[in-house]
Amino acid sequence: MSLIVHKYGGTSMGSTERISSVAKRVAKWARAGHQMVVVPSAMSGETNRLLALAKELAPATPSDSYYRELDMLAATGEQASSALLAIALQAQGVDSVSYTGWQIPIRTDSAYTKARIESIDDARVRADLEAGKVVIVTGFQGQDAKGNITTLGRGGSDTSAVAVAAAMKADECLIYTDVDGVYTTDPRVVSDARRLSTVSFEEMLEMASLGSKVLQIRSVEFAGKYKVKLRVLSSFTPWDIDIVEEARSGTLITFEEDENMEKAIVSGIAFNRDETKVSVLGVPDKPGIAYQILGAVADANIEVDMIIQNISKDGKTDFSFTVNHSDHARTIDLLKTQVVPKLGAQEVVGDTKICKVSIVGIGMRSHVGVASTMFRTLSEEGINIQMISTSEIKTSVVIDEKYMELAVRALHKAFGLECDSK
Amino acid sequence: MSLIVHKYGGTSMGSTERISSVAKRVAKWARAGHQMVVVPSAMSGETNRLLALAKELAPATPSDSYYRELDMLAATGEQASSALLAIALQAQGVDSVSYTGWQIPIRTDSAYTKARIESIDDARVRADLEAGKVVIVTGFQGQDAKGNITTLGRGGSDTSAVAVAAAMKADECLIYTDVDGVYTTDPRVVSDARRLSTVSFEEMLEMASLGSKVLQIRSVEFAGKYKVKLRVLSSFTPWDIDIVEEARSGTLITFEEDENMEKAIVSGIAFNRDETKVSVLGVPDKPGIAYQILGAVADANIEVDMIIQNISKDGKTDFSFTVNHSDHARTIDLLKTQVVPKLGAQEVVGDTKICKVSIVGIGMRSHVGVASTMFRTLSEEGINIQMISTSEIKTSVVIDEKYMELAVRALHKAFGLECDSK
Repeated sequence: MSLIVHKYGGTSMGSTERISSVAKRVAKWARAGHQMVVVPSAMSGETNRLLALAKELAPATPSDSYYRELDMLAATGEQASSALLAIALQAQGVDSVSYTGWQIPIRTDSAYTKARIESIDDARVRADLEAGKVVIVTGFQGQDAKGNITTLGRGGSDTSAVAVAAAMKADECLIYTDVDGVYTTDPRVVSDARRLSTVSFEEMLEMASLGSKVLQIRSVEFAGKYKVKLRVLSSFTPWDIDIVEEARSGTLITFEEDENMEKAIVSGIAFNRDETKVSVLGVPDKPGIAYQILGAVADANIEVDMIIQNISKDGKTDFSFTVNHSDHARTIDLLKTQVVPKLGAQEVVGDTKICKVSIVGIGMRSHVGVASTMFRTLSEEGINIQMISTSEIKTSVVIDEKYMELAVRALHKAFGLECDSK
Repeated sequence: MSLIVHKYGGTSMGSTERISSVAKRVAKWARAGHQMVVVPSAMSGETNRLLALAKELAPATPSDSYYRELDMLAATGEQASSALLAIALQAQGVDSVSYTGWQIPIRTDSAYTKARIESIDDARVRADLEAGKVVIVTGFQGQDAKGNITTLGRGGSDTSAVAVAAAMKADECLIYTDVDGVYTTDPRVVSDARRLSTVSFEEMLEMASLGSKVLQIRSVEFAGKYKVKLRVLSSFTPWDIDIVEEARSGTLITFEEDENMEKAIVSGIAFNRDETKVSVLGVPDKPGIAYQILGAVADANIEVDMIIQNISKDGKTDFSFTVNHSDHARTIDLLKTQVVPKLGAQEVVGDTKICKVSIVGIGMRSHVGVASTMFRTLSEEGINIQMISTSEIKTSVVIDEKYMELAVRALHKAFGLECDSK
């Protein structure tokens, strides 16, 4: 007997018919002798519906009190879907009970709309499992030290599921979603992209942060930290598929580098269009300019990703970094009004037509020349590289947005990631 | 400065526009210097929407576990509307916070879907009021001793509001609804029915139990028990009506028989079509037959209202009582299979075409002849009385359903209840 955590996304919970299918699948696992904990998202569309109502009523300048109420509101979506799933399981003849975040409790900090889980009490769930019940735990939410409802932010149910799996020392956490696993790259860009049967946490972490939207990045961090065996699989396979086959489907995200692990140097090509480039040109090259520029940006709560400082020429240098699209205008404005005058820099220029392409793989650690293969491949396609950033297991470049698909396809081929290539 | 509790029904909370109106009204009261606690219902239609989803998934034989999940589900409606109202108040520049039943906590027993409030902790609400906040408390729900969410049954938000008012020792509890007060009878039946400016708790209790659906009966019981000054008024008056005028509108339900109280002998005519008559005929007249018949009915959880045992003739008697429409078939079946054979009774007959009409008034206590005025009036209209039941402040009769409107109109006139009559 294993203890298994299932997580179902909003699409899987999108109608009573689908909830009924989820119940049948979970019932199958329970009847196979497993102790089952299930973490459902809100029914698809529900969270958006609720937040749209809030937006209609929202004050002009939202305060912390407003975000507190948003969490009160949004948390109802998962409470409702969890109760419905418990009811659907009862209809399958499976004893089942649902708990909200505060009933467990799942303790978080007080950062409304993006709270972080601090602790989970497993006593209540464990007692119910011992009593033979399937336990449903609302995703996405918790309770802070003062008893306020908090939510974990979009995609937070993934994190809830992994956190519950960690707290319960579950044997495996299965994330049922609308894709059937993690691919070498987006199959919509490269048609022969291949599904990976296993991928390491570190790789998954890089892929998630680089825009592969299969899993919420914090859920992967959590899984890595607490060594939770995590599997991404499709909720669209029929519920009555053979359970052994189902247990082996999708992509296993593992912390063990076992023998069965694929030996590829590069596991995948990630890309993202979410960033824009900002450059401060003609900065007098004195100690402390990075701090003066990025300190002001950080103070404005703007997150910076890649950073490059060019070599100095004639006592002046150029300084570039990337920020999210939504922060672009604000960053430019901030630099022009507050930073440039103080620094005596020449000007600020922005570029919103860029993209980031990355190769990711734990194999890169021990293989020199992987980055140079990347650069050669892009060069052969005539693609100019604007920025480069490297880590132990990934190399990212910023290029003109219009070359994105071309770059991804060329790299996918250069690193031999296509189907049936090995 | 007074401490005022407002309660708003589902229609008043039916859209963001209406929620915004409620917020403006509450803000007006807060700005007038009152400490405000507001108890909203779910947005109209929401509870039905949720319960319909549950019904689609429900197991064939619902257990207590099922009703537990129904409460988890249904409670989300008020949680959402409460958060939205808090947000709308913030948009009005009024500091506001919402709490669920478990956050207060409002402690109830564990009778899911029809729980009863046991205690309310006022510490959290009081602290917020002192800090100048308007506090929103979710109606309809509480938490049992084990931390499960419970609901109070349909209309339970009225009870929540009165219970909160009692716990907080509020100066007044204002129930905003879609009627503008309590009438001498249903204005749809008698066009010149008159709005009462005050009515006693005892009268209100009788009227509520007799089918005047202005207030949930338990909320009136609660108000009487804890001496909460209760006012029913319309949520459709413009929010910016003069506050003094608003505070005096509607109907005040009071426990004090003060001088201003209207001196009518009969305050109102109530009626209801919800009951049916069941008769066991030809019962051998021995001690214990009432117990043998009604004991079996009570054991089946069927509620009995009026009861009549005829005078014995030839050692046999007839026994009649009324039950709710929904219990009619079950009651007949129960009597036929379990009671009649044991008693040696002749037969069981039912009549679903009846109605109950009642005159209600605390003035009846000290006035003889009120009941006889009622009987004479009905007799003059040629209406046959099938059953009679009396108490200190009401007299009820069961008559043929088809004479209901005629009886109500005749009685309304006979007791001088019409507009401008005094």
